Amino acid sequence: MPEFLKLIPIEQALQILLSNMHVKVSRDRVQALNALGRVTAESIYSPISLPPFPRSTVDGYAVRASDTFGASESLPAYLRVNGEIQMGSSAGFDINQGETGLIHTGGMLPDSCDAVVMIEYSQQVSMDTVEILRSVAVGENIIKVGEDVHPGQEVISSGVRIRPAEIGGLAAIGVLELEVAKKPIVGIISSGDEVISPESRLLPGQVRDSNSYSLSALIDQAGGIPRRYGIFPDQFERLEAIATRALGECDMLVITAGSSASARDLTSRVINTLGSPGVLVHGVNIKPGKPTILAVCNQKVVIGLPGNPVSALVIAGLFVVPVVESLIGLTNVGVRTRLYARLSTNVPSQAGREDWVAARLYSDVSGYQVDPIFSKSNLIFSLVRANSTIRVPPDATGLSAGDMVEVQLLT
Amino acid sequence: MPEFLKLIPIEQALQILLSNMHVKVSRDRVQALNALGRVTAESIYSPISLPPFPRSTVDGYAVRASDTFGASESLPAYLRVNGEIQMGSSAGFDINQGETGLIHTGGMLPDSCDAVVMIEYSQQVSMDTVEILRSVAVGENIIKVGEDVHPGQEVISSGVRIRPAEIGGLAAIGVLELEVAKKPIVGIISSGDEVISPESRLLPGQVRDSNSYSLSALIDQAGGIPRRYGIFPDQFERLEAIATRALGECDMLVITAGSSASARDLTSRVINTLGSPGVLVHGVNIKPGKPTILAVCNQKVVIGLPGNPVSALVIAGLFVVPVVESLIGLTNVGVRTRLYARLSTNVPSQAGREDWVAARLYSDVSGYQVDPIFSKSNLIFSLVRANSTIRVPPDATGLSAGDMVEVQLLT
Repeated sequence: MPEFLKLIPIEQALQILLSNMHVKVSRDRVQALNALGRVTAESIYSPISLPPFPRSTVDGYAVRASDTFGASESLPAYLRVNGEIQMGSSAGFDINQGETGLIHTGGMLPDSCDAVVMIEYSQQVSMDTVEILRSVAVGENIIKVGEDVHPGQEVISSGVRIRPAEIGGLAAIGVLELEVAKKPIVGIISSGDEVISPESRLLPGQVRDSNSYSLSALIDQAGGIPRRYGIFPDQFERLEAIATRALGECDMLVITAGSSASARDLTSRVINTLGSPGVLVHGVNIKPGKPTILAVCNQKVVIGLPGNPVSALVIAGLFVVPVVESLIGLTNVGVRTRLYARLSTNVPSQAGREDWVAARLYSDVSGYQVDPIFSKSNLIFSLVRANSTIRVPPDATGLSAGDMVEVQLLT
Repeated sequence: MPEFLKLIPIEQALQILLSNMHVKVSRDRVQALNALGRVTAESIYSPISLPPFPRSTVDGYAVRASDTFGASESLPAYLRVNGEIQMGSSAGFDINQGETGLIHTGGMLPDSCDAVVMIEYSQQVSMDTVEILRSVAVGENIIKVGEDVHPGQEVISSGVRIRPAEIGGLAAIGVLELEVAKKPIVGIISSGDEVISPESRLLPGQVRDSNSYSLSALIDQAGGIPRRYGIFPDQFERLEAIATRALGECDMLVITAGSSASARDLTSRVINTLGSPGVLVHGVNIKPGKPTILAVCNQKVVIGLPGNPVSALVIAGLFVVPVVESLIGLTNVGVRTRLYARLSTNVPSQAGREDWVAARLYSDVSGYQVDPIFSKSNLIFSLVRANSTIRVPPDATGLSAGDMVEVQLLT
């Protein structure tokens, strides 16, 4: 039963997959306000300067800096106050040498001024005269036109996931619509003679399909549209027929195999009928999830996931998510947040294999701590109890209590 | 112009706010499959055992362990093979002493058996006889009934954000619907004589409203429903009227003030008319974002945000997000992911104030590195360029290049 041709390290397996797939990002035009979580399919250039006018960063007096040179508490400069600059408009009065105007934070500096004196360093001595108690340099307490962004500048590049900051930025420059990547459709087929739908009553020996539901959620999170094709028995012709149809209708296909070795072997044979080059990797050097199948058929990615729910979800995070991210043109594909935390208990491991152990991460005064959750790999609720996974590198024979270890958050 | 009554540390300010607000979580009933990102409003108990039957974790032979005791390569145990246990059903044949049946990973162990011998440690010697080359202990290579979950066990507690793992777990136990927290409606009012909508053409001195858009996205991300009421000039009566209406219609209210000191003062006066106790905190010990107003009016939270876009977004992450999370009953409110990274450049800071500096976090072979992005605090695109913020603790007078510093991701 020689099912694993060879075991390939994770990074190498992902590279093989990404370098064989064909990416052509299709586009949707969306309102900026509805673009949260989408990925830009074009570079965004600012049509304007930001700020569009010289702004005061404080409450105070708009001045020519030269009028304040040498001013101090003992020898103030006296300036004539010509008026108050209203928010949202230009001054509406001139400020010449020896003159000033009251200005608010965010107010528009008149052309003839080049600095602002903070109100704390002034003292009004009459209706139209103010004492300046400290000198300011040219440019002090102002933001110049275009200091944030100048017209024509690229402000968001293509392939960026839109966050609240980008949405604010787009509003600030008046960009109301933009092109984002169309969400790819990811087909999901469940197979396994023992697998039934969650609605069905369990008979002896049967288990409910959880993989196609957890995978749907993961694909949704990553930016794809999951399409579930249902549950199929471990029969070559039926699996081949549904896989052929699904691959034609989708941008990518995931098949979760039954848990027996023969079912996994069946998945591999079915995938090899779907197009060339077919199966590229059969067996990845990771626990849980060794019997992973990575394939490209007619330029579309097909992934065969292990049947057990924890392996399926961990492996999908490592391979399905980066492929979905590639299909929407995201740069930094497959880059995840790693934390380092102090391990509470020894974690045994077999050298030569990368282990991922479900864990509970928490922080206290001394920093991050992490407790491994020991369980057999096919217990879905070990992942529900976990908020993270501890990585045991392939060259380690285990991790010791007190070690700082690499942890990845489960979201 | 004594606008800040006193500056309060962030944690204390948040505690004041959370302890004065009234939380009553309303409920929505949703399909488990549509519950991604929602927060449970009830504890979920498993109706079944998981696994519901004793399962083999390997491909091999189902045995009574006692039949294998003493077996070795030189002295194998001989067992009679009564048949193959099909996936998804019970054996359908008896296995008595001295007998066995072929079983697959995930297959159902017959009642009379208590262990499985891996196929690697067996050798078929005739049509119906197999040699067992190694002994197994009772329970070896099987998962017992209920080893993951037993009937009536709480599998997901109330107040938990649903991830793909929870969705898989719910499917596995056949829970198709559940109660989640209704999304709270968060009203957003923009004020400022200088503020115009993103659609409008800019006149001198005007800026486009970006805050209500970035805030909408942030509230959406946190699990609330943003409702924008538009932009209002800095006039007491008009602001009071719209704030009163919005607070009546929403579960929480956010007002982004104009940037001038008088506009901020106006916001505070308006909030104090909305109900008691009114303004609880006016001024938080953080840069950017000092002029933050935290209030509770008739048990609902009202937050006055600084007008500048970076301050508004940083402060909203610190106060608006935890309040939204409280309103949906999320436990671990306001807990964020902190990373530690090596700082590339000195960061100056004023002691006694907590500074948050926009930054670019990246990882290389030596771990996380972080580059501060120096800019004036009201440049929205400094946040767009950032993927994180560096925290400068209140007691530090700056951070030095090479220090390991606390970094928070911007998502």
